[in-house]
Amino acid sequence: MKFLGFFSNLYPFKSPGNLPNSFQSGPKFVPTPRRTMSTTTMLRSLNIDNINPHVKEAKYAVRGELAVRSEEYRARLAKGSTDLPFDKVISANIGNPQQLDQKPITFFRQVLSLIEYPPLLEKEEVLLNQLGYASDVIERARWLLKTVGSVGAYSASAGVPGIKESVAKFIERRDAFPADPKDIYLSAGASSGVNTLLHVICASPQTGVLVPIPQYPLYTASLSVLDSKCVPYYLDESKNWGTDLEAIKGAHKQAVEEGTDVRAIVIINPGNPTGASLSADDVKAVIDFAAQEKLVVMADEVYQTNVFVGKFHSFKGVLRELQKDDPEKYKNVELASLHSVSKGMVGECGHRGGYFELCGFDPKVQEQIYKFVSISLCAPVVGQCLVELMVNPPKEGEPSYELYKQEYDGIFAGLQTRATALYDAFQDMEGVECGKPQGSMYLFPSITLSEKAAEAAKKEGRTPDEFYAFRLLDATGVCVVAGAGFGQKENTLHFRTTFLAPGTEWVGRITKFHKEFMDEFR
Amino acid sequence: MKFLGFFSNLYPFKSPGNLPNSFQSGPKFVPTPRRTMSTTTMLRSLNIDNINPHVKEAKYAVRGELAVRSEEYRARLAKGSTDLPFDKVISANIGNPQQLDQKPITFFRQVLSLIEYPPLLEKEEVLLNQLGYASDVIERARWLLKTVGSVGAYSASAGVPGIKESVAKFIERRDAFPADPKDIYLSAGASSGVNTLLHVICASPQTGVLVPIPQYPLYTASLSVLDSKCVPYYLDESKNWGTDLEAIKGAHKQAVEEGTDVRAIVIINPGNPTGASLSADDVKAVIDFAAQEKLVVMADEVYQTNVFVGKFHSFKGVLRELQKDDPEKYKNVELASLHSVSKGMVGECGHRGGYFELCGFDPKVQEQIYKFVSISLCAPVVGQCLVELMVNPPKEGEPSYELYKQEYDGIFAGLQTRATALYDAFQDMEGVECGKPQGSMYLFPSITLSEKAAEAAKKEGRTPDEFYAFRLLDATGVCVVAGAGFGQKENTLHFRTTFLAPGTEWVGRITKFHKEFMDEFR
Repeated sequence: MKFLGFFSNLYPFKSPGNLPNSFQSGPKFVPTPRRTMSTTTMLRSLNIDNINPHVKEAKYAVRGELAVRSEEYRARLAKGSTDLPFDKVISANIGNPQQLDQKPITFFRQVLSLIEYPPLLEKEEVLLNQLGYASDVIERARWLLKTVGSVGAYSASAGVPGIKESVAKFIERRDAFPADPKDIYLSAGASSGVNTLLHVICASPQTGVLVPIPQYPLYTASLSVLDSKCVPYYLDESKNWGTDLEAIKGAHKQAVEEGTDVRAIVIINPGNPTGASLSADDVKAVIDFAAQEKLVVMADEVYQTNVFVGKFHSFKGVLRELQKDDPEKYKNVELASLHSVSKGMVGECGHRGGYFELCGFDPKVQEQIYKFVSISLCAPVVGQCLVELMVNPPKEGEPSYELYKQEYDGIFAGLQTRATALYDAFQDMEGVECGKPQGSMYLFPSITLSEKAAEAAKKEGRTPDEFYAFRLLDATGVCVVAGAGFGQKENTLHFRTTFLAPGTEWVGRITKFHKEFMDEFR
Repeated sequence: MKFLGFFSNLYPFKSPGNLPNSFQSGPKFVPTPRRTMSTTTMLRSLNIDNINPHVKEAKYAVRGELAVRSEEYRARLAKGSTDLPFDKVISANIGNPQQLDQKPITFFRQVLSLIEYPPLLEKEEVLLNQLGYASDVIERARWLLKTVGSVGAYSASAGVPGIKESVAKFIERRDAFPADPKDIYLSAGASSGVNTLLHVICASPQTGVLVPIPQYPLYTASLSVLDSKCVPYYLDESKNWGTDLEAIKGAHKQAVEEGTDVRAIVIINPGNPTGASLSADDVKAVIDFAAQEKLVVMADEVYQTNVFVGKFHSFKGVLRELQKDDPEKYKNVELASLHSVSKGMVGECGHRGGYFELCGFDPKVQEQIYKFVSISLCAPVVGQCLVELMVNPPKEGEPSYELYKQEYDGIFAGLQTRATALYDAFQDMEGVECGKPQGSMYLFPSITLSEKAAEAAKKEGRTPDEFYAFRLLDATGVCVVAGAGFGQKENTLHFRTTFLAPGTEWVGRITKFHKEFMDEFR
């Protein structure tokens, strides 16, 4: 990736007006060819100076140094250490619901237990009368086993055909427009889908992809590894982190003028790290721009059920509406929309299930996508089954419905309550500003820190927000991610925190730390 | 990948003496930059001429056109079609035991059912007395849940620490040398491990990796995608497909002379597609050469328990023996050894579990490997649990041991019986030669076809072995993979078939087809 300065601690992000230089600049790393060294003096085949430079350039702060340190603290506490100023690590750095408090949905897991050990289905009476399995759990497990075969067998490369049919029906119900199973690709979480799509899109170091800033660092990391260009466009913090069409146009124009072959635009809706939930008009504006400039729209919609304010507008649904009104203009818009079992009220990250749907792609390009996914054989089959359960949960009137609904609504309400508690706490903190929670699993407050804090940070070779995040972890055991890990406008500082951790005690810890930090560096 | 001609139908593989030209040649594909087209005349952002050329170049015959056609036949039969000359498709193209006949190991799946739905553990009496779960199943599930937390949560990037400890203990028992959990990385099957390692190794188009021919096409496909060079070395068919050190040295020497930065050597032991099982001396010779030339040894050892003749010699064990004898010479040998739950008597491909162990790697390089795997978050957690179960199965005297041993031995014996039946059938077939089954899940017979058959193949734009494999599928429903998909010496033809399918009826179908084919093209 050319855009080297982006995640560097020392070269914070330039303002939009200065974009071209900031993402074109940065020294190009060239690996040392081994043949210039004598193999007899060379210690090993691989060293830090000769491995793939694009892997080296990639940054992934969500699981970076701060996260590693938090795991060390957790391990120390687990071994009985009492020398830390906290007795519990709160991993608010990553949207990992079941690591914290979220219980799996009973229906999902009951079905999975049966497909893992099908002989249980021969004991239907025991399941029903002694283990509390409802009849629709048993029916679904039987149907899945018939559809999938053994979950221990490889499936078809793009996923089990019957599960792709379920996904298509779900999309049809959601959008009120048809969906075709042949355009659906089951993947190992949405991350693997993003990896596949970017592999096909990124043809050379000149290929550019528009990525929102702040963003989930999977996009910049993958573009680094693929040696293509991130073309950043800023979200509008003053409008609750909505898309700003002018910012998108400006970023695109400058990139094209500088010779970048801009091919795609990434939209994360609801937003990560911002939590923003886009209006139908915002979605339309993006599609309109993509149609005009012939850009692939990559719609990361993994938080589509995590919406507190307004309503989720799928890119697929809005695209089909636009196509109804003006078929000629929109007929060739290429859309890839991604979804996952990791988020929402499902929260089954560890099962690595997800899918993407393609609209308007050239069939020959789809063939290449099929071949690419076939190299890694297939997505985890239990994860594929979870996708089926997610898109086809118990319906009203079915035996498992009441419990499902109660669990689902309980998780939704819990997330909203926690988001609000955290938001309220931020309201009372000096120099902290935060928009009302709208969706996803995150808040992304801005923080204003003193010159003194910035200088102390500089001494440690960190940005002020990273410095703040490390101090927060060391003092409280609460692990957040500094805004620098997602990108932010110059002279602004943020951090991302999930609102998944239960209780409010940890929020109190942040409040207390923040006050002390502000006093120390006043 | 530069070595374009390799999988092409029209440019079969050159003999070893001609290697340099064959793997250096081939036109370099350059994608059409979009900016040379007007966006108003351009239909879409992506077309077959402008997507990533390295994805396009990759070939993966195991799931290619033949496999796709076999799935179409399967779908037609499922819909009740009677116009095919067979009533069942036999997928002998892919090592997918549970798609065919192999039953999962009871102990493994009972444990998985409990970790998927932990409330079952509250009904211990029902599990023990009515569902046939043994007490060690319950204990293991409790231990795994304690170690892992929820299987629905992301684990640490390189895998659950407690599971890595189990893997280290397994390696210690296997090799009688220590293993360190910090050097073990849990992966989504071995494929994902290969992907990770090659991503780090391949630094530029000049990077070369020695790959055995014939080989499992994951290696050439991944090298294509990464735009690095496959440096092919031939296995010795006359010695039951063993490694031939002179062939390795020759291939290496020529590649280096032509400016290739050869960094690693892939060994598949037991072999895929060949089934070869290497002697300790063969393993030593490879390590010796790698030490001398400073090459990373990538030991693909996923078939380590599928050995019928002789004994498996792990690269790790042999390396540590060599290091004991001559520490100075071998101290910096870099070895990555890969294993998987997909093969062996486990056969749990769909769960996507595996690991790789690193020896002798630079710690700074390991940091980059850690970061790279963190971008895709973690391997499927249920797959990680299966790795734990595979490396730590019930021990003698434990309640589940008898059944485990009976199932395990039954699968092993079944594979051997089927391999022998298939081998016997090949002995009676005109123009077919096949070494005795030694290991893995495959036989790789050579076939001699007539000029007339070669001409008929040419008319269809196929190699003769591909032509044969298509005709076999169309006539019998048996899907094998032509030798061209793995690489073979010029003027030789082969196919790979698994010996996983039950019964002998399908073997009879092959025999009958073969006779008719030979008669038709006599």
